[in-house]
Amino acid sequence: MHRYRSHTCGQLRASDVGSDVRLSGWLHNRRDLGGILFIDLRDHYGLVQLVARPGTPANEALSHITKESAVRIDGKVSARGAENVNPELPTGEIEIEVTEVEVLGASAQVPFTINTDDGVNEERRLEYRFLDLRRERMHRNIMLRTAVISAIRHKMTALGFNEMATPILTASSPEGARDFLVPSRLNPGKFYALPQAPQQFKQLLMIAGFDRYFQIAPCFRDEDARADRSPGEFYQLDIEMSFVEQEDVFQPVEKLMTELFEEFGGGRHVTSPFPRIPFREAMMKYGSDKPDLRAQLELVDISDVFEGSEFKAFAGKHVRALPVPGAQDQPRKFFDQLGEYAVEQGAKGLAWVRVGDDGALSGPIAKFLTEENVKVLTERLGLKPGHAVFFGAGDFEEVSKIMGAVRVEAARRAGHFEDNVFRFCWIVDFPMYEKDAETGKIDFSHNPFSMPQGGLEALETQDPLDVLGWQYDIVCNGVELSSGAIRNHEPEIMFKAFEIAGYDRATVEHEFSGMLRAFQYGAPPHGGIAPGVDRIVMLLADEPNIRETIAFPLNQNAQDLLMGAPAEVDDARLKELHISVYKGPAKPTPYKPTK
Amino acid sequence: MHRYRSHTCGQLRASDVGSDVRLSGWLHNRRDLGGILFIDLRDHYGLVQLVARPGTPANEALSHITKESAVRIDGKVSARGAENVNPELPTGEIEIEVTEVEVLGASAQVPFTINTDDGVNEERRLEYRFLDLRRERMHRNIMLRTAVISAIRHKMTALGFNEMATPILTASSPEGARDFLVPSRLNPGKFYALPQAPQQFKQLLMIAGFDRYFQIAPCFRDEDARADRSPGEFYQLDIEMSFVEQEDVFQPVEKLMTELFEEFGGGRHVTSPFPRIPFREAMMKYGSDKPDLRAQLELVDISDVFEGSEFKAFAGKHVRALPVPGAQDQPRKFFDQLGEYAVEQGAKGLAWVRVGDDGALSGPIAKFLTEENVKVLTERLGLKPGHAVFFGAGDFEEVSKIMGAVRVEAARRAGHFEDNVFRFCWIVDFPMYEKDAETGKIDFSHNPFSMPQGGLEALETQDPLDVLGWQYDIVCNGVELSSGAIRNHEPEIMFKAFEIAGYDRATVEHEFSGMLRAFQYGAPPHGGIAPGVDRIVMLLADEPNIRETIAFPLNQNAQDLLMGAPAEVDDARLKELHISVYKGPAKPTPYKPTK
Repeated sequence: MHRYRSHTCGQLRASDVGSDVRLSGWLHNRRDLGGILFIDLRDHYGLVQLVARPGTPANEALSHITKESAVRIDGKVSARGAENVNPELPTGEIEIEVTEVEVLGASAQVPFTINTDDGVNEERRLEYRFLDLRRERMHRNIMLRTAVISAIRHKMTALGFNEMATPILTASSPEGARDFLVPSRLNPGKFYALPQAPQQFKQLLMIAGFDRYFQIAPCFRDEDARADRSPGEFYQLDIEMSFVEQEDVFQPVEKLMTELFEEFGGGRHVTSPFPRIPFREAMMKYGSDKPDLRAQLELVDISDVFEGSEFKAFAGKHVRALPVPGAQDQPRKFFDQLGEYAVEQGAKGLAWVRVGDDGALSGPIAKFLTEENVKVLTERLGLKPGHAVFFGAGDFEEVSKIMGAVRVEAARRAGHFEDNVFRFCWIVDFPMYEKDAETGKIDFSHNPFSMPQGGLEALETQDPLDVLGWQYDIVCNGVELSSGAIRNHEPEIMFKAFEIAGYDRATVEHEFSGMLRAFQYGAPPHGGIAPGVDRIVMLLADEPNIRETIAFPLNQNAQDLLMGAPAEVDDARLKELHISVYKGPAKPTPYKPTK
Repeated sequence: MHRYRSHTCGQLRASDVGSDVRLSGWLHNRRDLGGILFIDLRDHYGLVQLVARPGTPANEALSHITKESAVRIDGKVSARGAENVNPELPTGEIEIEVTEVEVLGASAQVPFTINTDDGVNEERRLEYRFLDLRRERMHRNIMLRTAVISAIRHKMTALGFNEMATPILTASSPEGARDFLVPSRLNPGKFYALPQAPQQFKQLLMIAGFDRYFQIAPCFRDEDARADRSPGEFYQLDIEMSFVEQEDVFQPVEKLMTELFEEFGGGRHVTSPFPRIPFREAMMKYGSDKPDLRAQLELVDISDVFEGSEFKAFAGKHVRALPVPGAQDQPRKFFDQLGEYAVEQGAKGLAWVRVGDDGALSGPIAKFLTEENVKVLTERLGLKPGHAVFFGAGDFEEVSKIMGAVRVEAARRAGHFEDNVFRFCWIVDFPMYEKDAETGKIDFSHNPFSMPQGGLEALETQDPLDVLGWQYDIVCNGVELSSGAIRNHEPEIMFKAFEIAGYDRATVEHEFSGMLRAFQYGAPPHGGIAPGVDRIVMLLADEPNIRETIAFPLNQNAQDLLMGAPAEVDDARLKELHISVYKGPAKPTPYKPTK
């Protein structure tokens, strides 16, 4: 018989009754019922019940072993009485009569319970992460992560993509966040940067001819922690393809996401195909470029209705309406609470009306609406008895933000919110440029490296503010999983695009010399995307905090409490790296957690 | 029709003749045969021949496009005449009559040829890696790497292992090499280390109960470059298992390696099962703990034969013999050249004899051998007419090293070397301790964290120099792919093991506090291994230099010539990281490439 086990703890069934078995695992729980010990033994694969009768050496041994010790037991499988069968446990029809016990790894008293969630704080959990990971929820989350990433790799390979690792010790890239730096011992005074994303390398792989690349890519940004972003490192499903247009990128990603979320979403349905929503339409209808489409309400622009109105709160402003059907039974509280919610989002208040059985409007602002207003609104908003309508007025950005949030909240409260679905969409047609409200200067609104729609001709002939980019986001349930783009692979179009934003040729050549050099040697049209793996797993695991889906995350202060990182380093070692700890007059800003 | 292609360049066959097709790719080669242009168009998937007849717009366009430009062509598939069929090319039965040409990405004159190997130096290749990777050999190597790693993941998952990523921003670990350090912005004066290996994390995953872990793990060592090690980062197939003994680790690894090398070894056969060779036997028979078993000769210890001999060169020394059968036709040169080779390895010379048809010995040292010597040697070495025997004498280490090298060289020269096979073996039973020749002090000979064979009892009762570890190497064709071990998971055994090597309890507790803390909470018996992915790919690709199997390696000076890393960094950025470039009196040692 094997030194440690003949079976795993999740394996034995009624058909094994009578077998002599050997199991190893952790002492999960122990109950003493009139001297008979009932013990749950746990391993990676499951739980099984052990029984030790009074007066046996096994009973004596098991009564003294600390919970969470690793033990090996020998015993015989026996059937549980019908009244003791546990239908929730795969091994629930049997138990093991223990004949021999060996402690393989004794445990000290654990600092928090493993077999129940005792609400211990996160710092302590991270300090003892090796114990925290034994808990059912964390074990399930990490195994989900493993299964999801394995499935991604399998599906991407089946879709004809080739996984390639790109360098981790590399150069700073223009992603916009802070780099982590690594001093070079062999090159005094110089530093590597850890990649914020393998953006440039994946484009180089396209130029090198590899056609369809992907990577579960480690990325590094020296940013403060957020609930949906781990400080330090995170992973993205980095994708790039050659000889493609936008839709060619959408097809495999949509197939992947649909399969992945159907397979691992715990029964939540995926609505496919994903709608393609132009950026401006998204901002108008949903007040956001990452709309939560589970909320089945839409905003309507009614600015024109009040253009010359005498109702000063609306007149000449950008006005957006949110019609909510079926609100006839909503109490006053519904309106008040949504109003409070709007104020939390930055609004001064939330105007509303409701439509009575006779089609007449009532509510705080009803009296300011002319007969003509009511007629137009009824038609434009499709108002019927029982509708409520909320209004936001102000400038476009502000109204979008507030009414976008109100839209989702109203949908939740009024029963227009779909649970148990994953509602994906593509946001497309992002503008290439925007005008700075204060300076009037034209600048890139999103990604300067995207190909403008219409190419060089569009840049040369159109108003820059009308030029759209081949740039897109993929959004799921209001969470942006990734931006992506068809890249600008032609140096001349790139110089022109930067010129419009006020960068001269020399600056562009200096800043992006590596990529520009590569683009001069037969770059293919190419594009890609890079959905965040951590966010995908968060959505699938239904966890609000990214650290619950990572085995060994840094804490919010970017520290590893278990291994003690970061740590001080010998001066000799620093000298070898040609650096010293800076002790200048300027005091470093103390760290404040953001959320 | 798709904007860029209806087919790839490797796809079209005789059955497609007559079809209108669209292809995109790179202009690989162009020949002008009496005005007719023949062009090879290349993409990731293959090569296809284009034809442009004189006087057509296509001919005009294609005659002016620089090689390595990315182009899109439209055309009709036509059959090649029987005399023009190219059986070496999958598309060799057809060609495309081009009707339309579009340049998608123009190329400047390339700095070296892509379609032939023009022997350009490596620095230039790295500087233009995106072009170098277009070359057939590099493309093949990188795709092999991709396929091998994908297969490893697939096979490991099928074997019940779960892939989990471990932190890259972490703490220094006791692996013995230099760490790369990363200054922390949020924790002034403190540094992360990049992992030399995920050793501690994979052990923590076992303690956390995950049972069977693997990872294609990025590892970082700040070492100078070697042919078989990339400076900076490398990848290992990191494996760990719980509730296992040594053989339990061997089984899946042996299955994986056999399948992998059979599948990707280009027809080279794998001999399985892999022999288990105790360390001492390996040193004796092969003079090495990484024997190349393709060399079918073995060393024999004959020290005892000359113990009281009057032959001073051998008397009282460690003497090893290498019998080589079938050497009757070897000229004197064979012996002389092997002698020179031995001298290169550090020997003073190489003694030898040969066995004549009558069984009598001749050669330089024959006259020093007594009749009794000859009788014993003939029996012990199984000497027959035609045998040659080489001798090494000195101390054990030196003789092992020299005669180990002579063994392989002699096998190559005398036809006792198997080509076209992968000869794996496990080296087992490494001693836990060794005595320092000068100080007489006992120290760990290999890995202090391995479980000693016999556990605590062995440590308490045996001579330390007799204690063996549950520690092993996997070796293929003389290349060590990895060390591994059953770990010492019991704190008391660990304290004792370190005590024998002269480390007191407090030192051990201080140095390894993180792991020791974890071991106190029910650590399971566990063990693992971590074969080098880069070395596996090198063996399979039959490439002597590791950089030929990596898409974007650092050069020997640990520089990325393409992206310009490492680079200088703004003082402001350094201040934010609480460091400054050290400008002390001690001059940094200038870098010298090692090999």
